[in-house]
Amino acid sequence: MDFSSKLLENAVNEVSRLPGIGKRTALRLVLHLLKQPKESTKFLTEALNVMRNEIKTCRKCHNISDTILCDICANPKRNTEIVCVVEDIRDVMAIENTAQYKGVYHVLGGKISPIEGIGPQNLQIESLVEKVRSGEVKELIFALSSTMEGDTTNFYIYKQVEKYDIVTSTIARGISVGDELEFADEVTLGRSIINRIPFENSLKG
Amino acid sequence: MDFSSKLLENAVNEVSRLPGIGKRTALRLVLHLLKQPKESTKFLTEALNVMRNEIKTCRKCHNISDTILCDICANPKRNTEIVCVVEDIRDVMAIENTAQYKGVYHVLGGKISPIEGIGPQNLQIESLVEKVRSGEVKELIFALSSTMEGDTTNFYIYKQVEKYDIVTSTIARGISVGDELEFADEVTLGRSIINRIPFENSLKG
Repeated sequence: MDFSSKLLENAVNEVSRLPGIGKRTALRLVLHLLKQPKESTKFLTEALNVMRNEIKTCRKCHNISDTILCDICANPKRNTEIVCVVEDIRDVMAIENTAQYKGVYHVLGGKISPIEGIGPQNLQIESLVEKVRSGEVKELIFALSSTMEGDTTNFYIYKQVEKYDIVTSTIARGISVGDELEFADEVTLGRSIINRIPFENSLKG
Repeated sequence: MDFSSKLLENAVNEVSRLPGIGKRTALRLVLHLLKQPKESTKFLTEALNVMRNEIKTCRKCHNISDTILCDICANPKRNTEIVCVVEDIRDVMAIENTAQYKGVYHVLGGKISPIEGIGPQNLQIESLVEKVRSGEVKELIFALSSTMEGDTTNFYIYKQVEKYDIVTSTIARGISVGDELEFADEVTLGRSIINRIPFENSLKG
């Protein structure tokens, strides 16, 4: 693209570094900001800068937080003996939305992914194993994505903690509520038969 | 969405004000910035702020520019007697990319659109009519989008300048190069027959 303005070109280049934003989309966003009052750009950039510079991660669960201990870890009503292992804050938000979980979380910050160059040392795995070793954890619930990377990460952690006296579980894989059986893939359907549950349990929640 | 951090929530809200960016996409973009070094956010926000505060519009053609006269208007090789009327900088970039046009531009800043509350007074129409009145323009080329709003804007300007001794033209509507006839819509195909051109002309460019 051939810009008539270096300032515009520079802004478009920076915006298009964001994931999933190409040059054309970036130009559209930047032109939108130019049509809005200057305050719009000021509020946007201030919010981003303040967030990037002042945000913390909870020292216990490593979730994003404004304080050194996040609201969930600081809540005395949560059961700190049950720890749900998740990838990032979006998973915490998704599980919290269900209002079904009263334990705490441990945010890994990603999944083991050799292709993207992410190994165990780049994730919060050592601190999780330390938590288990110290005896404060009774149950670990693996709630990573059901992908190759997620399964690898689950297994890696499992191997490190199996020698300790804790319960390890993983969230149920099965047919989504509302799904038609004929459209379910065979792996999911197969697992849902192997891991069938007492009928009374399906009446809850 | 229920955020564990006000700073994060605020940043997501600001980003999701951008057109076409929902809360989920905004969260994805903001989490990306959190994973990158702090410099990424600094460069992004600086580029946006500098652009928003320092960018100018060319005093002749009203295109976005870093100087009070844009490169095209300041170029002595361009024919200032031919003025191409466009909506915004993207159209200027598209036409410049063809390398077929040696005149100058007049950027309206939008199209007349009652639904969006944009009337002639919100666009650079008065300054265009003034240019024509002063006698410096010999030909106006209308190059707005082929939509209801584009046609309305063309017609509105045409009505204001028809009393002056200038040539007015509009870019050709017709079958795109590479298109199959059977898939062309009937309006476009009909116009392309009415406005057929000497065969020799089709061999150029």
